[in-house]
Amino acid sequence: MSNYFETLAQVIERNRSHLCIGLDLVPEQMPGRVWRDTDGYVHFGRSIIEATADLVCAYKPNLAFYEAMGGGGFQTLRKIIEAIPTSIPVIADGKRADIGSTAGAYARAMFDRFGFDAATLNPYLGYDSIEPFLQYEACGCYVLCLTSNRGAEDFQIPNELYLKVARRAAEWNVHGNVGLVVGATRPERIAEVRAAAPELPFLIPGVGAQGGDLEASVRAAANGRPNGGFIINVSRSVLYASAEDDYAAAARREAERLREAIENALAQVPEVK
Amino acid sequence: MSNYFETLAQVIERNRSHLCIGLDLVPEQMPGRVWRDTDGYVHFGRSIIEATADLVCAYKPNLAFYEAMGGGGFQTLRKIIEAIPTSIPVIADGKRADIGSTAGAYARAMFDRFGFDAATLNPYLGYDSIEPFLQYEACGCYVLCLTSNRGAEDFQIPNELYLKVARRAAEWNVHGNVGLVVGATRPERIAEVRAAAPELPFLIPGVGAQGGDLEASVRAAANGRPNGGFIINVSRSVLYASAEDDYAAAARREAERLREAIENALAQVPEVK
Repeated sequence: MSNYFETLAQVIERNRSHLCIGLDLVPEQMPGRVWRDTDGYVHFGRSIIEATADLVCAYKPNLAFYEAMGGGGFQTLRKIIEAIPTSIPVIADGKRADIGSTAGAYARAMFDRFGFDAATLNPYLGYDSIEPFLQYEACGCYVLCLTSNRGAEDFQIPNELYLKVARRAAEWNVHGNVGLVVGATRPERIAEVRAAAPELPFLIPGVGAQGGDLEASVRAAANGRPNGGFIINVSRSVLYASAEDDYAAAARREAERLREAIENALAQVPEVK
Repeated sequence: MSNYFETLAQVIERNRSHLCIGLDLVPEQMPGRVWRDTDGYVHFGRSIIEATADLVCAYKPNLAFYEAMGGGGFQTLRKIIEAIPTSIPVIADGKRADIGSTAGAYARAMFDRFGFDAATLNPYLGYDSIEPFLQYEACGCYVLCLTSNRGAEDFQIPNELYLKVARRAAEWNVHGNVGLVVGATRPERIAEVRAAAPELPFLIPGVGAQGGDLEASVRAAANGRPNGGFIINVSRSVLYASAEDDYAAAARREAERLREAIENALAQVPEVK
């Protein structure tokens, strides 16, 4: 079994895409004809995947939306991600963290039980909350560094905590399976994170509905490697590109547009040319 | 529907107990005769509850252990907590957090879908990651402040981040439904958190298997209110007090011992006398 980031690099090259689609199923935003029940969600999710699988490098379901479906939500998620070709990695966006022994249970859940290829992790509890995940050397561990929301200003930015997290995460990367979550809404800070952790791959949310600057983010994140050292996640603007029956085709068009925008931005970064 | 902390205060008084039992089901630690399957876990969990319900003020399942059971884990948890008398609150220890709109999905999951009375939350993403939970005014929101593990030294203690979190959480407490998680392993810092947030109720883990100092923690946490302004959570040393068939009776004895130890420690705090 190859390392997550190696697999990711292969898919980036094969699909010529740094686009990750967030499978964030929000009942209120579902197109008109989609039933608000398990069958409807599964059909919607699988339709999005089938329409976009050749345009992406990864999919990223945010677990919150499946927990919000109640006790059967994780089963619904399983049925949806069955439609993802096995060659394309799946990132569990759960932002999990707990003290060591309990973090081990979360790691088992994410990587053994549900079989995700990577997971997002919250660093507030420090190294022993991350270490059980790192032991899964074939799996990717994206540590939250600088999030895309306004609340990043509360604790992450004062005292440059996000840069301390970036430097520590780089130290934790002994198995080559650590990445960082860095939001697209503050590109000037992405450049600082890149300087603090030159080798770590970034997962960049915040483009799309949240209004992050795609081109500036790509410029700041690219680390001179062939695959650029980053992927960009977009959820709502792809999934809900149309409120009508043509939602899958509309999602495909939006994914194509985003893929091209990212590749064009990356092609203009001097180091990669 | 009354406020979570009001309900909690009533149970503290009625059961003369500040003890919260953590329902952390670890397959490898189950007593010998308990089957390692859903039926076994449900039977074990319900037996622990039935043996201790008159000795506690709350129960706190850590969601990690139920996620680690796979897709049916949350159903197992539901069957277990059905045995908890409705008068006793249940705290979902999930340490969830995400950006605003997604945090709303977690809040719906915890409070609407699963019907928990309170939840633990991770502050790394700041106010907008907490605010959707605060909107559930009848529910308790325990914000992680200083955790009991070694990793607390990585980001929480440098620059006294944990005290900044405590002060911000106190500001967020406009509906009277905010508490703090403060680990028992550093009692001298509990006193600092108490000074930073005199009004906020504490949830204190780390006594028991983690070796925190119960008496010093009670002394540092007590805020002079009739109920002391804290509860103490113990998980493994109660649940796995015996590896034999008498595990429920052994759990009851350990819960009684802990309850007495806490009440005695609180009785010695001058302000409360």
